[in-house]
Parts: sequence; C-alpha cells; structure tokens
Amino acid sequence: MFVLYMSHILINFAFIIKSIFAMDTEYFRTRHTVRNFSSREVPDSLIKEIFEDAMHAPTCGGMQLYTAVVSRTHETLKEMAALHFNQPAAIGAKALITICADFNRMTRWCEIRNADAGYDNLLSLTNAMADAYAFAQQFITAAEMRGLGVCWLGTATYNAAAIADMLHLPELTLPVCTLAIGWPEGEPQEAERLPIDAVLVWERYPDRSDKEIEEIHAEKESLEVNKGYVKENGLDNLAQVFAQVRYPRSTNEAASASLREFLTRQKFL
Amino acid sequence: MFVLYMSHILINFAFIIKSIFAMDTEYFRTRHTVRNFSSREVPDSLIKEIFEDAMHAPTCGGMQLYTAVVSRTHETLKEMAALHFNQPAAIGAKALITICADFNRMTRWCEIRNADAGYDNLLSLTNAMADAYAFAQQFITAAEMRGLGVCWLGTATYNAAAIADMLHLPELTLPVCTLAIGWPEGEPQEAERLPIDAVLVWERYPDRSDKEIEEIHAEKESLEVNKGYVKENGLDNLAQVFAQVRYPRSTNEAASASLREFLTRQKFL
Repeated sequence: MFVLYMSHILINFAFIIKSIFAMDTEYFRTRHTVRNFSSREVPDSLIKEIFEDAMHAPTCGGMQLYTAVVSRTHETLKEMAALHFNQPAAIGAKALITICADFNRMTRWCEIRNADAGYDNLLSLTNAMADAYAFAQQFITAAEMRGLGVCWLGTATYNAAAIADMLHLPELTLPVCTLAIGWPEGEPQEAERLPIDAVLVWERYPDRSDKEIEEIHAEKESLEVNKGYVKENGLDNLAQVFAQVRYPRSTNEAASASLREFLTRQKFL
Repeated sequence: MFVLYMSHILINFAFIIKSIFAMDTEYFRTRHTVRNFSSREVPDSLIKEIFEDAMHAPTCGGMQLYTAVVSRTHETLKEMAALHFNQPAAIGAKALITICADFNRMTRWCEIRNADAGYDNLLSLTNAMADAYAFAQQFITAAEMRGLGVCWLGTATYNAAAIADMLHLPELTLPVCTLAIGWPEGEPQEAERLPIDAVLVWERYPDRSDKEIEEIHAEKESLEVNKGYVKENGLDNLAQVFAQVRYPRSTNEAASASLREFLTRQKFL
C-alpha cells in the first residue's frame, strides 16, 4: 500500500516536473500573433502587473529609455486604431499600448541636475530604440504567458508624427510600436518561419549562392496559403507579393521621408 | 492510511501547481544581467534549441529581418571581445552572439525572383531593427529560463563597421547588439528600476514638473552604490555620472557620426 502510493506520488511528481520544464519551450514554439479579441475586459491592474514583470528586461545602463502610453477609453482607442490604418487587431483591442523610445525623461533629469545631456543624436536614438523594443518583447511574453493575446503593430513608425501629436509626445521620443492586447478569440493563424540555417550562422555571414537563397525560401513558397496570395494578386511569385503589394518601395520611401522629418523635429537627427 | 496519502498527494499537487503559476512572474522580476560566467561549456545544440524557441518571436510580415552570427572559437571570441572594449562579460563568455538587422537576405530573394526590393531606406532599417531586437529579447528570455546567464552588449552599434568587417556582414545589415552567454557564476548584481509611473502612463505623455522628474529619480539617487559613484568621480550628483562619465556627449556624437557613415555604406541611409 505504502509503496503503491509512494510510486504514485513519484510518478505524478516526475510528470509535473517534466511539464514545468517542457512548458516554457512549448510556450515559445506555439506562441502566435492574436488579431481577434473577445469582449472580456483587461483590467488596468493586469496591465500594471505585466509592466512590473517587463520592466526587468535588459536596459542600457539601467536608464530605461522608454515610456509606454496606454490608450484605454473608447474615444482614444478609436483614434489610435485609425492611426494604425484601422487594422482589425487595432479595432478590436481592449488596450493599445504605444511603446516609445524616450531620452526626454533622462534629459530633463540631467538639465535639472546641471549635467550636459548629450542625447540629441543618432546613437542615443538607437540605444533608446533597443530599450523600447526589448521592453516591448518582454511585455508580450509576460502577457502571453498569462493567456492574453497580442498583436504587434509595426505601423507606429509609419505614422510617428500623428501618433506623437495624439499622445503629446515631447522631443527626444519616438513611438516604435503599438501593442494591441485582449483575450484571444477564434482560431489562431499558423505562423510560418524560415529554416533555422537562414537566421543562425556560425562565425561569419555566409556568402550564399542564388540556389541557397532559393532553398531558404522554398518551404514558404510551397505553402498553399502563399500560393493563394500570388494567384489573387495576379503575380508570378511570393517575393513579388512582398515587394509589390505588402511592403512596396513607394510606401517604404514615403514613410522613410516622413520618419526622417519626424526624427529631425524630435532632435534625434 | 488512504486518506493520509491522498491528502499528501493533493497538498503536493497544489504546491506544485502554485509554483508553476508563480514561477513565470518570479522569473521576470528576479532576472538580471550576468557578467561572470563559469568554465562550464555551452554546447552548440543548446544554442540551436534556444534559437528554435526565439524564432517564434513576432516579426514584420513573417520576414524575420535578422541574422545572428555566433562567435565560438577561442580566436573569434577574443577578436569580438576586443570590439566590445574587452568588457569582462565579453571576455568570459562561452559564446558571443551578434544579432543583426538584416534586409540583405530578403533583398537577394526579391532580386532572384524579379521583384523590386525597396528596402534600402530608413523605414526598412527600423523594421529590421524591430525584428532583430525582438528576437534578441526572446532569445535572452528562453536562455535565462534554461538557467543560462546573458549580458546584452549594446556596444555593437558603437563599433558597427569593425564588427561588420570581422563577421563579413553584407550591405543592408546592421549589428544591433551582441549577447554574451554562459553559465552564471558568483553573486548577481541587483538591478535597480525606476518607479512604474516613470515608464507607464495613461492616455497621454504627462507634462511633468521638475519636482516630478526629481521624484522619479529620488530612489535611484538615494542608493548607497550610486552615492559611491558620485563621490569616486568627484561629481555633484548621479545625473552627472551618466552625462559626463558613462554616456558623455563626446562619445555619443563620435559614435553617431561613425554609425551614420556605416548606415550609408550599408545602403540604409
């Protein structure tokens, strides 16, 4: 009897311990963007709790060169969604969290303390972007591990000036992304990824042949869903879908010009 | 007897379940940078395993606009550490993983497929930086949850051209950070963080008074370790330690000029 129950305890224990260690990897590999959210609310207290987790992400010299502005009211959510081209994820989100690279707060402190704040330059911009993106990613992980769904809206940099106006962002700040959050609803979209050798290389960047570049993208090109995009756009192949429809030169160049102008206005360039 | 063992099982089970849910938050809030590494090896297979986790981080349109180059041999580790000013974390690391924003691979694919790749611009650079930083942060989390220690070397952008030469980075790439990894040794350094209201704001960026800026930094200024830095540098306050010693204008401006030159050479500007 004793042996039987002990063995039960040990088997349970081994199983649960195994689950603990398996769980993390399972989270990482099965995570995916969520674009459809249920009507269930996300309380402010939960957003704060996730913030307290994510604030421990690495940061340049402990300066925490970021600020996150949370849009919560019906009106500001609607206004912010419009600045993200009314993408479905932006429209349905319970909160839109705009994460900004921020050297303003640090600079204010230096000015008050009679220290020469030399942060109105490109290098400081990249340091603050690093902090802001690392914080954003850690926020996503901490949110998703609690069961929330997140969609990363990269369009923040396309509309940086208008977003800055809406959120009253001061100089030496740049909105780098907006996170749309809520509780997931419906079936998730499968995320496709390149083979690991495409992104992980050893010692040196490889001098790849055209054939190797083709091989890297072969699986992506062979997916039915991607063949569908090629067909419905009347194009020859998937690369053209990216370069001519999704991320075309004209949009990239126009957005680059706006972004450069905004970064100059913000004193980073 | 039966009841006794059942209650043992249930108590154990409740405890373990509680640990599972507590664990994540505990990881996030207790994580810290590791700068001292033991002599224990980090096998290639483990690096790959963490990569497979981190590759599922959010990425712009599924393009995975990054490449990570792993320095592993005694010679390349030494060479890379020197490009990071021989910081102790760089010298002691078992692997130095340089993460690069990368629009080169995507552009090569477009060229082969007769698609006009319009990614030689500022907006595309920020999209690739977002992907690279998000990947870097997810790599750190997946590595630390396995017990590894990581130090984020932000100096990659200070020495981008030399690092690019060493790693044979092609145009349309930018090294954004190098992660020093290994198994932790010794006591971790406590990480200080600002109060949450410094970085989390609601609806609008606040128009803070000088007093509020001072309050945000009060705890940081009051720490004995920081008072020590002020004293040993013969300065008046902590802001001056940042602005005059750690991240001074002269260094930021010189590094900005080099970075701008490099980004032009890489065809991003």
